[in-house]
Amino acid sequence: MEERSVTGWAARDSTGILSPYSFTLRKTGPEDVVFKVMYCGIDHTDLHQMRNEIHMTNYPLVPGHEVVGEIEELGSDVRKFKVGDMVGVGCIVGSCGKCSSCKSNLEQYCSNRIFTYNGVYSDGKPTQGGFSSAMVVHQKFVVKIPEKLAPEHAAPLLCAGVTAYSPLRQFSGSDKVLKAGILGLGGVGHVGVQIAKAMGHHVTVISSSDKKKLEALEHLGADAFLVSSNAAEMAVAVDSLDYILDTVPAVHPLESYLSLLKVNGKL
Amino acid sequence: MEERSVTGWAARDSTGILSPYSFTLRKTGPEDVVFKVMYCGIDHTDLHQMRNEIHMTNYPLVPGHEVVGEIEELGSDVRKFKVGDMVGVGCIVGSCGKCSSCKSNLEQYCSNRIFTYNGVYSDGKPTQGGFSSAMVVHQKFVVKIPEKLAPEHAAPLLCAGVTAYSPLRQFSGSDKVLKAGILGLGGVGHVGVQIAKAMGHHVTVISSSDKKKLEALEHLGADAFLVSSNAAEMAVAVDSLDYILDTVPAVHPLESYLSLLKVNGKL
Repeated sequence: MEERSVTGWAARDSTGILSPYSFTLRKTGPEDVVFKVMYCGIDHTDLHQMRNEIHMTNYPLVPGHEVVGEIEELGSDVRKFKVGDMVGVGCIVGSCGKCSSCKSNLEQYCSNRIFTYNGVYSDGKPTQGGFSSAMVVHQKFVVKIPEKLAPEHAAPLLCAGVTAYSPLRQFSGSDKVLKAGILGLGGVGHVGVQIAKAMGHHVTVISSSDKKKLEALEHLGADAFLVSSNAAEMAVAVDSLDYILDTVPAVHPLESYLSLLKVNGKL
Repeated sequence: MEERSVTGWAARDSTGILSPYSFTLRKTGPEDVVFKVMYCGIDHTDLHQMRNEIHMTNYPLVPGHEVVGEIEELGSDVRKFKVGDMVGVGCIVGSCGKCSSCKSNLEQYCSNRIFTYNGVYSDGKPTQGGFSSAMVVHQKFVVKIPEKLAPEHAAPLLCAGVTAYSPLRQFSGSDKVLKAGILGLGGVGHVGVQIAKAMGHHVTVISSSDKKKLEALEHLGADAFLVSSNAAEMAVAVDSLDYILDTVPAVHPLESYLSLLKVNGKL
């Protein structure tokens, strides 16, 4: 129950270069889960934060918010996990617990949510992420990784995966085969294709060039590929999609994509 | 079954001034309904069209697309109406009948829909609106006015009314009392307040000044009134509404209104 010393990889300044960093984790509280980190994804938010590109980084900063690990110790009140379970942690490790968002299991909208790193925990100490030998996290923000899922495959689902899953889940809801468009084939898009296919949708990948056509059709199992710079291809696809998941992070005009949607389609 | 001569009020040029105009209606086809116009609403689209402010007016132009009248004659295949019925016609009088929108009873999205006036009917003749002694309209675009509803009150529901009703119907769907915001209290807004109240919602009118406060609360039965230029009032209302029906026709920033919505609220 004492504070434990751990070693992480921390950025120290806006070069973003990571170097070993020793720090302590809080004593295990009654609702805390302590786990040894096995795998941790990296996405562009980590890079932005390491380099202070969002102008809110507090150094030293240990990134990582797609964390999978094996439980080493449990707080006295934790019943839903056991030592040795494989678990995951995503973007947040705390919230107020009292607002309407928290009471609706929508803690990500709590205005006092605590980010997995670069946040301040309720004990006043900075939070540090998954690029660390171990983590201590309140059980509410820990999920069990199913045994059928390889833990190294589970890690990127904890941010990129849920980012695609949440809208796809909202688009679904009827039994008919939805005609899906996935715009962009980067970190979120390539997971989106696979999730939409697993949901039984007919998936068209929309990309600005045909560079990723083979990857989309052969490797990820998409049903069709549409080059947005090809006016003839775009014209044929007008009024054909039930939804588009737009994963393009840069500012871009929407008109040509909106025209691909059926009446009452959703972007 | 002959063409019938009628008298309407037509604009002849972009002054928009209406003057008597004699023209003929087509012979009564098997699916046509012929009715004597009793009442016709006027809204700002009529004014725009009369004055060629949308740059698409064909003169002479008989406006009016909120039309109520009494049936005088029926085509041989019309079964759902009888002579003497009070009926209404709104914005469109025809569509292709074959596209996916038409087959889904969403004729308003048919790309070949025919507007009630300033359109071209399938016989190649211009359509003319409800500022006329009579109209001939295909039965598919004629609705029965319920006997309980005074025909002069029914007329404005055929455009302003459905404009408010359609989104309010989409916002609804659960049994809980929705917290509604109606932004703007003009032609659409004042109908929106009454429809939302009839749906059992708690209605807040949002307006740029308090000029219409009495009208909203006393005359239309709104539950609350919010002055959007009053920062203190707006701050108190943050995160309080399930939806906002925005009826303001001018370009305006949305940020301050979006902040009034709860998580997953709709504008």
